Formats: sequence, C-alpha cells, structure tokens
Amino acid sequence: MTASTTQQIILTGDRPTGPLHLGHFVGSLRNRVAYQHDYRQYIMLADAQALTDNMEDTGKVHRNVVEVALDYLAVGIDPAKSTIFIQSQVPELAELTFYYLNLVTVARLERNPTVKEEIRLRGFERDIPAGFLTYPASQAADITAFKAHVVPVGEDQIPMIEQANEIVRRFNRLAGRDILVECKALVPEIGRLPGTDGKAKMSKSLGNTINLGASEAEIRAAVKMVYTDPLHLRVEDPGHLEGNVAFLYLDAFDPDKAALAEMKAHYVRGGLGDSVVKKRLDLVLQELLAPIRARREEFAKDRGQVMQMLKEGTMVARETAAKTLDEVRAALGLSYF
Amino acid sequence: MTASTTQQIILTGDRPTGPLHLGHFVGSLRNRVAYQHDYRQYIMLADAQALTDNMEDTGKVHRNVVEVALDYLAVGIDPAKSTIFIQSQVPELAELTFYYLNLVTVARLERNPTVKEEIRLRGFERDIPAGFLTYPASQAADITAFKAHVVPVGEDQIPMIEQANEIVRRFNRLAGRDILVECKALVPEIGRLPGTDGKAKMSKSLGNTINLGASEAEIRAAVKMVYTDPLHLRVEDPGHLEGNVAFLYLDAFDPDKAALAEMKAHYVRGGLGDSVVKKRLDLVLQELLAPIRARREEFAKDRGQVMQMLKEGTMVARETAAKTLDEVRAALGLSYF
Repeated sequence: MTASTTQQIILTGDRPTGPLHLGHFVGSLRNRVAYQHDYRQYIMLADAQALTDNMEDTGKVHRNVVEVALDYLAVGIDPAKSTIFIQSQVPELAELTFYYLNLVTVARLERNPTVKEEIRLRGFERDIPAGFLTYPASQAADITAFKAHVVPVGEDQIPMIEQANEIVRRFNRLAGRDILVECKALVPEIGRLPGTDGKAKMSKSLGNTINLGASEAEIRAAVKMVYTDPLHLRVEDPGHLEGNVAFLYLDAFDPDKAALAEMKAHYVRGGLGDSVVKKRLDLVLQELLAPIRARREEFAKDRGQVMQMLKEGTMVARETAAKTLDEVRAALGLSYF
Repeated sequence: MTASTTQQIILTGDRPTGPLHLGHFVGSLRNRVAYQHDYRQYIMLADAQALTDNMEDTGKVHRNVVEVALDYLAVGIDPAKSTIFIQSQVPELAELTFYYLNLVTVARLERNPTVKEEIRLRGFERDIPAGFLTYPASQAADITAFKAHVVPVGEDQIPMIEQANEIVRRFNRLAGRDILVECKALVPEIGRLPGTDGKAKMSKSLGNTINLGASEAEIRAAVKMVYTDPLHLRVEDPGHLEGNVAFLYLDAFDPDKAALAEMKAHYVRGGLGDSVVKKRLDLVLQELLAPIRARREEFAKDRGQVMQMLKEGTMVARETAAKTLDEVRAALGLSYF
C-alpha cells in the first residue's frame, strides 16, 4: 500500500481550558464531523499543552477535559470513527518532544510568527516559560506521532505546520530514510467567527462567546447583546452589513440562504429593525443548539462512560505513537535491549 | 522514617561520548566507588543528554554506552551496590523534563552561567539547539526523579544544581506540598586533572587524555609527552612545580607521599632530571591502571552480560522514576483513569 491508496490521517484537537463555543463549531467541530467519514481522525485533548500557560491553575485544565469531550460527543463526533485521546496520557508525545528539541534552534523558535504573536498576546515578554517557547516541538511530536498527513488549522497557525515539517525533514535526513511524514495545513473556508461584541475572535476570556451547551435563556440573552450596526438608529435608516455580527452569524448558520439574502437587502435599504434580524438569529441558533444541548445533557449523565471512551481512545493513540517512537529511537541509536 | 534517618541518595553519571580517562577517575569515578557504600547511588549513562550536541553522530553515543559501563565496572563500581542505568530507557525522565519546561523561563535558562559557558565552548551562538538551552530542565528531571539529596559536580556545574532546586521549589509551591526534594552539590576536593599537555582540562577532543583502558605502551607514550617545566633545560637547573603535570599527576596518584615530597624538593633545588620523575610517574600509573585494564578486559569478554546488568539497573531506575512521575502528574491534575 502507498500513501495515496491508504486512508489519509488527520490530527486535530483542543486545549481543554473551557467549554467549546460557536467559534469552535464553525472553525473546527463541524468539519471534524465530516472528516471522520473520509479520514482516519485523531482528536487530541491537549491538556499537557494547556499547562504551558496554566501552571497556576492546573485544576481548570483537568476539569475541562471531560467537558470538552462532552462537547465533542454533543456535536456528533463519533468515538467509533474518530480516536479521541488525552495528550498527557500518551507519554510517547513528551518523549518525542524531548528529542525534537535537538532538531530546532532557539533562534528558529523565536522567529516563529505564531509563537511571537502568542507571546505578545499573553504578555509574557522575556518571562516566557520555556515550555511555551518550545511548544512547536511538542506540536511536531503530536503531529508526527500519528504520521498525520493533514492538520486543520487557522491561517495564523500555518507557521507551526511549517516548523513541524522542518523537523520532519531534518529528522529524516539524519535517519537516512523517511520515517516521519510531512503534513499539510488544512485551512477551513470559514475560519473564524467574531465574538458577540464584534471583536474579531470569539473567546472565553473576552466574555463574548455562545457556548455549545448554552441554555435557551443564555442564547436569547447573548443574541440580544449581539453587535449589529451602531449607525442603524431608526428602523427606517439604511443598515450596514460589514462587521454586523447578527448577519455574520446568520451567514454561518441560517440554512435558508434565499430568505437571508432578502433580509440583508431589506436591511441595507432601510425599514428592517435589528429586533427582527435578532429574532431570526435567535430562532436559528436555538434550532442549531437545541439538539446539541440535548445530546450533551444525555452524555453528561454518565461521565464515567465518557472517561471510559477517552481511556479506550487513549490506548489506541498510545499504540500508534509508541510505534513511531520506536522507529525514532532506533534511528537515533537509542535501542539497546 | 525521616530523611535524616534514611539513606541519602546520590545521582551521578556521564555522557557516553568516549572512553573515560584519568580525569574522570580523579574527578568522579574514584569517589563513586567510595559513595556506593554509604549512599543509595544511581549512575546514569546520559545518552539522551549527549544527543543535544551529537545529533549528527548518534552512533558514537550508542557505541559508548557499553564502553563507559565497562569503565565503571573496571574501576570497581559494583552493580549490586550502585544502580547503573541508561537515561533514554527511562522515558519518565523525558516526561518530567516536558513538565519542568513550564517551570522555568527562557530568560532564566539564558542566564544560567554553565549553559552560557558551554554554548560559548561549543560555538553555538544563536544556533543553539533548543534541547541544549533547555538541558537544565532535563537535568532537574534526572535529579528529582530519584529524589537525589546529593549530586557530585564540578564547581562549574553548581548553577545547574541551583536551577534544579528552583524548579523543585516552584513545583512544590504549586503542588502545595513537598513532592520533590532539593539537592546539594558535592564538589570533590580534587576537582580536575589537567591534560597531559598542561591544558586545564583533560579532554578527548584535545587529545590530552590517558584512558582507563590504555595499554602499557599507551601509558608509557603518554607519560613521555607529559608537560613538565619548560625552563628546566638541564638536570642541574632548579625545576618548577607549578603547572608541572608530571608532579600534579604524582600528587593525585602516588601512594608514597613521603618519597614524593622528597622528590619534589630535589627537583626544585636542581639536580633531578625529568626522566626520573617520569619514570616514577610511569610506574605509578602502570600500577594504578594495570588492574583496571585487566578487569575491563575480563568484563569486555561478555558484553551481553554487561548489557544485561544495564537492563536490570534500568528497570530499577524506571520503577523509582515512575513513582515520582506519578506524584508529579497527580499534582498537576494529569491523572484521569
């Protein structure tokens, strides 16, 4: 079998630092439900990576592992089709990281634009935890352990993929054969959903999210606060669509594209109030999230079973990662017994 | 049992990048033979650490693991008393390193004087492999995995011990209890033997060593080349002892201190030729190294048995390291199943 005839492998995942929200749904979860039919999909709960900037609140990471797993199940990720696992419980990933650290220079890590930007966002400056600077090596370990061909990422994460591939090439050159596999970034069409407040990113820390497990009342309250057009003061005024979160959300979720196009035209020429648009948005989001919430509640009744599912996924992931690690170790002359 | 009533634990070891020599014997090996009676001693063949600057020659590291183990056995390190193990075969150490990277900042690593100096010596400048910059975290993992109280190091390595202890304190503070143990540097009285050429350090790369496994002829040839006193041109001239490697070696190895004192006095007042001094040195080194060489050759007949010894030591080491790792994981909220 050659790579072209075997099933392609995807690695994806999330840092379990809080409940997943509509931004995750649009940017990744929705796609994963589709990918699991066509790809061999590994989904990682990146608890170890989450620690790089959560050492002072490790309990948060621990608690959110099962919560994020519930979100996965709720949106329709099927553990029979996708391998869901907990990063820290696959120690082979830490070991691969350890060796990959020798294949990348400090200067190269410091030049990584994703790392640079995240250091800036988190305000680390010179007090970056070493684990934060080196996390591209860890990510390379996660990707290569499963010999992933495809990694779905946002545009801003492309430099991480490039760095992983540099490590792959350097390692394969040292090994004298192609043990590790280069991967491709898969950037989703709708990359990012703005926050309810109109900020570019929906983010828990900004308080501008709608969580997948949100109740009816929470959805309604969030929709009421959704940023629209600050210049659209009276119903009869022409409204603007640019940066109008209500319409951006409808673009993402309203299944009735024709009605939406009509509504947009009406809004732009004037005579359509925000309350009408928001009423539609509320309806669309309630319909989208009601079955997700219901499934989430159903699965949440037996968290033991969810943990059992994670345990089984983790065992499968370990087996694959251990095989890659064995090959890496042998190539580095680290097999003795 | 409190720490004061239990046996103290020592962690020590070598990077297996070449045969051990008289410098190792004076600086560490000799002491280990003594320590193994009074301490619980772990001796690590640091093959994984050796890779940080030997990725282009991993075969060298692999080959030297058994060679260094033979040197250990030859000098009288007893695997029944000391636990000798191979670092890379204790993956718990890589995993601990991975987590400790979150407990130390990049700035702090860059300030480490030992790291700074070794970066300078190796000519890395900005192209330092990340694994080289972060190796204090790896060393902290090695030390703490065994809850070592004592780490024998040269004076230049004291900053490494300080950094390990900082990680210990930071971790224990986060954990809310004393899981990891702080260690003390144990600096040997005779820290460093100069090279045969008079350079401060005996080092394989400088070609100024006398290996523990050296043959009679090799010892004789090396002694002939030993740096003495360049001003001592004629036998009747007064000789100088400062920097005189022949006498520095006699200081380290000649068991007859009285005769040595007399010889020194004679040399200083003039009338004693270098050839006499070197003849004595040759005799002393031949007597020191003959039994070591014989034992080495004996053990070398069955390398399979040496590997078996390493396998058993590694199993013991893994068990200890795994216990510590379990505690560390639990404290970080990384226990799930």
